[in-house]
Amino acid sequence: MAVNLIIPPESEIHSVDGVEIGIAEAGIRKAHHKDLTVFRFAQGSTVAGVFTRNRFRAAPVQVCESHLASGNAIRALVINTGNANAGTGEAGMRVAQETCRAAASLLGLQPEQVLPFSTGVILEPLPLDRLLAALPAAIDNLAAANWLPAAHSIMTTDTQPKVSSRRLQAGGHTVTITGISKGAGMIRPNMATMLGFMATDAAIPAELLADMTRRIADRSFNRITVDGDTSTNDSFIIVATGRSGLSVDSTSSPHYQALFDALAASALELAQKIVRDAEGATKFMTIQVDEAGSAEEALQVAYAVAHSPLVKTAFYASDPNLGRILAAIGYAGVADLDVSGVSLWLGDVLVASRGQRHPDYREEDGQRVMKEAEIPMRIALGRGQVSETVYTCDFSHDYVSINADYRS
Amino acid sequence: MAVNLIIPPESEIHSVDGVEIGIAEAGIRKAHHKDLTVFRFAQGSTVAGVFTRNRFRAAPVQVCESHLASGNAIRALVINTGNANAGTGEAGMRVAQETCRAAASLLGLQPEQVLPFSTGVILEPLPLDRLLAALPAAIDNLAAANWLPAAHSIMTTDTQPKVSSRRLQAGGHTVTITGISKGAGMIRPNMATMLGFMATDAAIPAELLADMTRRIADRSFNRITVDGDTSTNDSFIIVATGRSGLSVDSTSSPHYQALFDALAASALELAQKIVRDAEGATKFMTIQVDEAGSAEEALQVAYAVAHSPLVKTAFYASDPNLGRILAAIGYAGVADLDVSGVSLWLGDVLVASRGQRHPDYREEDGQRVMKEAEIPMRIALGRGQVSETVYTCDFSHDYVSINADYRS
Repeated sequence: MAVNLIIPPESEIHSVDGVEIGIAEAGIRKAHHKDLTVFRFAQGSTVAGVFTRNRFRAAPVQVCESHLASGNAIRALVINTGNANAGTGEAGMRVAQETCRAAASLLGLQPEQVLPFSTGVILEPLPLDRLLAALPAAIDNLAAANWLPAAHSIMTTDTQPKVSSRRLQAGGHTVTITGISKGAGMIRPNMATMLGFMATDAAIPAELLADMTRRIADRSFNRITVDGDTSTNDSFIIVATGRSGLSVDSTSSPHYQALFDALAASALELAQKIVRDAEGATKFMTIQVDEAGSAEEALQVAYAVAHSPLVKTAFYASDPNLGRILAAIGYAGVADLDVSGVSLWLGDVLVASRGQRHPDYREEDGQRVMKEAEIPMRIALGRGQVSETVYTCDFSHDYVSINADYRS
Repeated sequence: MAVNLIIPPESEIHSVDGVEIGIAEAGIRKAHHKDLTVFRFAQGSTVAGVFTRNRFRAAPVQVCESHLASGNAIRALVINTGNANAGTGEAGMRVAQETCRAAASLLGLQPEQVLPFSTGVILEPLPLDRLLAALPAAIDNLAAANWLPAAHSIMTTDTQPKVSSRRLQAGGHTVTITGISKGAGMIRPNMATMLGFMATDAAIPAELLADMTRRIADRSFNRITVDGDTSTNDSFIIVATGRSGLSVDSTSSPHYQALFDALAASALELAQKIVRDAEGATKFMTIQVDEAGSAEEALQVAYAVAHSPLVKTAFYASDPNLGRILAAIGYAGVADLDVSGVSLWLGDVLVASRGQRHPDYREEDGQRVMKEAEIPMRIALGRGQVSETVYTCDFSHDYVSINADYRS
C-alpha cells in the first residue's frame, strides 16, 4: 500500500528528445516477466551518475564508474531486475562487461559507452545467457514514449511505478525533465537499493552535470531512508541530451538555477516516491532538524529518529509514545548535546520544549497528527542555524512479511 | 516467546549475605501490579554502577550518578517500573530526590545513600504519591531470598524473569554471585532499556569495583542489541557486601581473576537473557567479528549486521538470503574495507570467502543453520587480529505488534 503515491497520467509523462527506451522479458529470476530495460541516448548527450558507497559495490556499479571515467560518451544503459550481480566476484565482473559488450555490438557502440545496472537478490550468479538472449528484443522495442513501461520494468518489491515529469520555459525553449526510480527496501542514503534515471533535453557540459548530479542526490536520494540498509547497487543517473535548444554552460548561466531547481524537484519527487512505496509503509514522515550546529549533526539526529524501530512502530500504531523520539535524539551521537535546548513539534503541536514535555501538550493533539498519512516532524536543537530534512516511513507488520518472504 | 531462556529453580538461586530485597504494589501505571522493589545492603558494602550514555539521561540516572559520586556509602536501591521518569525536567528530578529522601527516612539512612531507578514510558510524569505510599510495604517485605520475586517485579515487556546465580570457591571461602536483569526492547549497547543488579559477598574496594563494573559491562550489557535504541534509563549495578570472608584488594590479588571471571560470566548470562527474551524474538544470534584492525571496526561491522532489519527479518524467516549480511558489512562504515578479504560463516558453513559466494556453498546448508534457535555467525575481515562479539535476535511480526501496542 503506497502512501499518496501519484502516478501521472500518460498525457503528463513527457518524452525527452534524444532518449529512447526499450523493454523485454529476460526471465532473469521469473519467467514471463519484463525485467530488462535499455536506454539509448542521442549522440552528444552528457551523462553523470552517483553510486552506492557500500564497500560491497556490485559488479555493475564498478563497471559504471569505470566507463563514466573513461571519457563519458555514454550512449546506452542496460538495466536488469531479479539479480543484483553483487557478491559475485570476478565472474560477476565478466557478466557486467559482457552485457555492455553485447549491447554495444547491437547498437553500434563501444562497450565503454554502455552502463550496466542490476537490482535484486545479492550473492547469486546472474544468468548472463538469459540477459543476452533478450537484449535484441529490448533494442527492437526502443521508443521515446516508453517511460511508464520502463518504470514498471525496473520494479522489484515496489508496488507502484515511480515517474516524474515536468517542463520549464527557459531562454525561449521548452525544456523537459522526465525520470523514473525504483526501490522499496534496503533504502538508506548513500544510497538506497534504488535506481534513479532522469533525462533532460537541456544541454549541460559533462563536468557541470556531474557536479549538479552530486548536489541533487544530496538533497533527494541521499535524504531518504526506509530501513537503514544501504544497498550494493544504488545508482542515480542524469542524462542531458541538449535537444531542446537550451544550453547551460556554468553555474552563472542565466537559466542555470531554474534548471537546477527543476531537476532537483524531479529527483526529490522520485526519491519521496520510493519512501511512499516503501515496504509495508502506511505513513510518510518528514523529519526536519533545525538549529543544528552543523549539517552532520542535523543528519545524525534526523537519521537516529528515522531509523528507530520504536519510533517507526509507534507511528504505525498512531500511538503518541513520543518519548521514543527524545530517546533517539539523545543517542544520536551528538556528544555535547544540551537536552535543555531541545524542542519537538509534531505537525503544529509543540510536544516538548526545553528537553521536557511541554506543559500544554495533550496526547489527543499528538494523536491527531499521528493519524494522518503525511506526518511532518520538526526538531529544534538550540545549537545553531543549520537545517536538514530527511524522509522516511513507518514500520509495519507488512515490512516484516515482505522481507521474510522476499525470495520465496 | 523467549529463546532458550532458563529460569533457575529456586534451590539454585543463592541469597547473597548482606543483601535484602523487598517488593510492593505501587500501581505506578497499572493497579495491583508489583512494580516497586527495594534493595538494602549491609553496612560496609561497596557499590558501583554504569549508566546510559543517552544525552536524555533520565532523572533517576542523574541522581544515581550524583549519589555514587558523593562518597559511595550506598545502602539501598529503589526501583519502579511503569514510568521511566525521563523527559520530565526539574519536576522529574524532584520526584527522584523525594524517592531517595523517603526511603532513607524509613531505612535510617541519608538520602545520598539511596539510588533510584525507573523504567517504563518516557515523557510522562511519575506519580510520586503512589510510589511513596507503597515504600513502607516494600521495606516491610525485605528478605534475603527475594531475588526471583524481584526479577519479576522489575519486568516491563519482558515475558520471563532473568536471574543468574553462581558460587565459586576462593581462598577457603564460598563466594556467591547473584543478579537479576530486565529489558526486552529499546536495547542497544551504552546501554539498553535495561536494568541489571548483581551482588556478591566478596569484599571489593569501591574504586576497584567501579573499574571491574565498567569492564564487565563492556563485555556483557554493552554487547547486546535488539533494536538499536539506546534508552534513557539503562543502569547496571554491582554491590559487594564482603560477608563471605573473601577480600580482593587489587587486580593482582590471588583470587581477583577468578572473581572477575565469575562476575563477568553472570553479567553475560543476564545480558544474553535480555536478548533471549527480546520483544518478538524467535532466534538468538551470536555475531563474532574476527581479523579486525581494531575493536572499533569489529564493533562497527557487528552492529551493522545486528541492526539490519533485512538481516533480522531473513533470520526470522530462516531464509538464507545471506547477501544481506554482506551488504551490511559493506555499509558498516569501515572506509577502506577491502571486501576481497571478507569471509562469512553461518555455524560451520562457509558461505562467502574472498568477498563472494563460496563455490561449495549450498543454500540447504545455510538454511539448516538458520532453522536453529541458536545461530552463531562469524565474519572474518582479513585486516588484523582483533575480535569482538555481539549478541542479538531476529525481527518478527511480534516485535511490531508489541511496540505498536506497548502503551495500550
